[in-house]
Amino acid sequence: MRLVVVGTVAFDAIETPFGKTDKILGGAATYIALAASKLGGHSGIVSVVGGDFPPEHLQLLQNNNIDTRGIEIVKDGRTFFWSGRYHNDMNSRDTLVTELNVLGNFQPHVPESYRSDEFLMLGNLTPSIQKQVIEQFVKRPKLIVMDTMNFWMDTAWDDLLEVIGMVDVLTINDAEARQLSGEYALIKAARKILQMGPRFLVIKKGEHGALLFHKNEVFFAPALPLEEVFDPTGAGDTFAGGFIGYLAQTGDISFSNMKRAIIYGSALASFTVEKFGVEGLQQLNNEELENRIQRFFDMVQFDIKINQAQV
Amino acid sequence: MRLVVVGTVAFDAIETPFGKTDKILGGAATYIALAASKLGGHSGIVSVVGGDFPPEHLQLLQNNNIDTRGIEIVKDGRTFFWSGRYHNDMNSRDTLVTELNVLGNFQPHVPESYRSDEFLMLGNLTPSIQKQVIEQFVKRPKLIVMDTMNFWMDTAWDDLLEVIGMVDVLTINDAEARQLSGEYALIKAARKILQMGPRFLVIKKGEHGALLFHKNEVFFAPALPLEEVFDPTGAGDTFAGGFIGYLAQTGDISFSNMKRAIIYGSALASFTVEKFGVEGLQQLNNEELENRIQRFFDMVQFDIKINQAQV
Repeated sequence: MRLVVVGTVAFDAIETPFGKTDKILGGAATYIALAASKLGGHSGIVSVVGGDFPPEHLQLLQNNNIDTRGIEIVKDGRTFFWSGRYHNDMNSRDTLVTELNVLGNFQPHVPESYRSDEFLMLGNLTPSIQKQVIEQFVKRPKLIVMDTMNFWMDTAWDDLLEVIGMVDVLTINDAEARQLSGEYALIKAARKILQMGPRFLVIKKGEHGALLFHKNEVFFAPALPLEEVFDPTGAGDTFAGGFIGYLAQTGDISFSNMKRAIIYGSALASFTVEKFGVEGLQQLNNEELENRIQRFFDMVQFDIKINQAQV
Repeated sequence: MRLVVVGTVAFDAIETPFGKTDKILGGAATYIALAASKLGGHSGIVSVVGGDFPPEHLQLLQNNNIDTRGIEIVKDGRTFFWSGRYHNDMNSRDTLVTELNVLGNFQPHVPESYRSDEFLMLGNLTPSIQKQVIEQFVKRPKLIVMDTMNFWMDTAWDDLLEVIGMVDVLTINDAEARQLSGEYALIKAARKILQMGPRFLVIKKGEHGALLFHKNEVFFAPALPLEEVFDPTGAGDTFAGGFIGYLAQTGDISFSNMKRAIIYGSALASFTVEKFGVEGLQQLNNEELENRIQRFFDMVQFDIKINQAQV
């Protein structure tokens, strides 16, 4: 099934302790769609770029089975640009530059041919834009996954809550879950957020893994301990793209399939952080991905013999 | 099999956002031995207390199948006292008081009847004292587990490395693993530490779970997301006590049994943090423990269908 992705397509310039890049291909929708394509998925992006956006980048997306007809090109505008510098621990970063450019006036237009698709991923964007995208669908998609961030909690609270009320799955990090709910304990935070509308909540904890909440159930997926974290940019978007890409590809949105989807998202994200930009995803082959999925499986397996212990 | 535990038996005074205690029973050896006793284990403590240590506390330990003959009582001395205040996030704390008292001149004496026991837990203490305990054994125990902390890395580096070279399992937290190895990535840190002597390394990450490293294998155990963290004091010691207690009780020190031991340690620690001091452990019954072990199992289980995804 085709997946529709709305989100930024952008230039990133990244500095890490290991090196720096010029303006390279970035953006939430880019990582999401590329991650989904690695699972055999077909996706269509809804976004906007400027006249400075190189045709090779569009070609790269198309070569990965990604429909780019929904990417509006504003000929006399410039593409959204973000630049950041990671600290030595690779867990924190400073934003050096944010130029909204054409994103500042973005009015999303979902192509006719996308409007009956069943899987919709709302990448991190202004909540009102996310809402406009949902409203352009002919019928409500089977599954809507929404990513967001603390910035919108600070600046667009009411809009944000409205969109959260319209989606099936919300993905946020642990600090954002605490901010959104006003609860420190994640299990309490999850309970409150599940009352805001989404049936599923994914809390991303970066190098500490991810939690999936649904009703009274919780699933925990670890992050692989990696030799090198080279560039964390795009890790969260890759995770989200792997997650919804797996669900769209299998057509199964049960809780047990969502567990697998989380593992696929985590595995794909582990490749993204090992290289600059989208390089890790681009170079990835199926065998490497399967080996890594197996490592996730092995890492958490244990058998229990309940009743053996005596209290 | 009997487990020998060396470590502090102490008074703690604890302040948390939820309340405060007067001087209550605490100390690493206390939590370790009580946790092991919850798995049916029989342990003997090697420690020292002052004349101010109430007979009821010794009685409590004895009632839990703990041999206290190795706890020296210095009649005219005072018991080790620690006081701390936890911050609102419950992950950081300020030490308000540390009175070494009788611990300042502690010369451990392992009772004759303990000296052939096969499981030895070195709770966090001066490395030279940990070493003296090992040397008093008639033959080397089958398994020696050592806990330590950053303080000894700062003040007793050479002694610390010597003891680390004598043990089978080292348990430290993630920051300590980084400090000990000089490596930020935990997988690299683990590789270096395993070259220092221990065959197994447990890296404790608190609310983010624990990692067990052995040769090229890694096992990850999550921490349960809890409703309330009431008092984190003793969580690490409870974890260690559950870990070695399970191994001693089953007599099996294979990697696969160590995985189970980590889960038992994690489950027991989750009860400790739900109450002040040792109360959570004391009130725990077998059914509650088994239910929690089952929750750990359920939380990480997923099945995979490798080859389903197409790259």
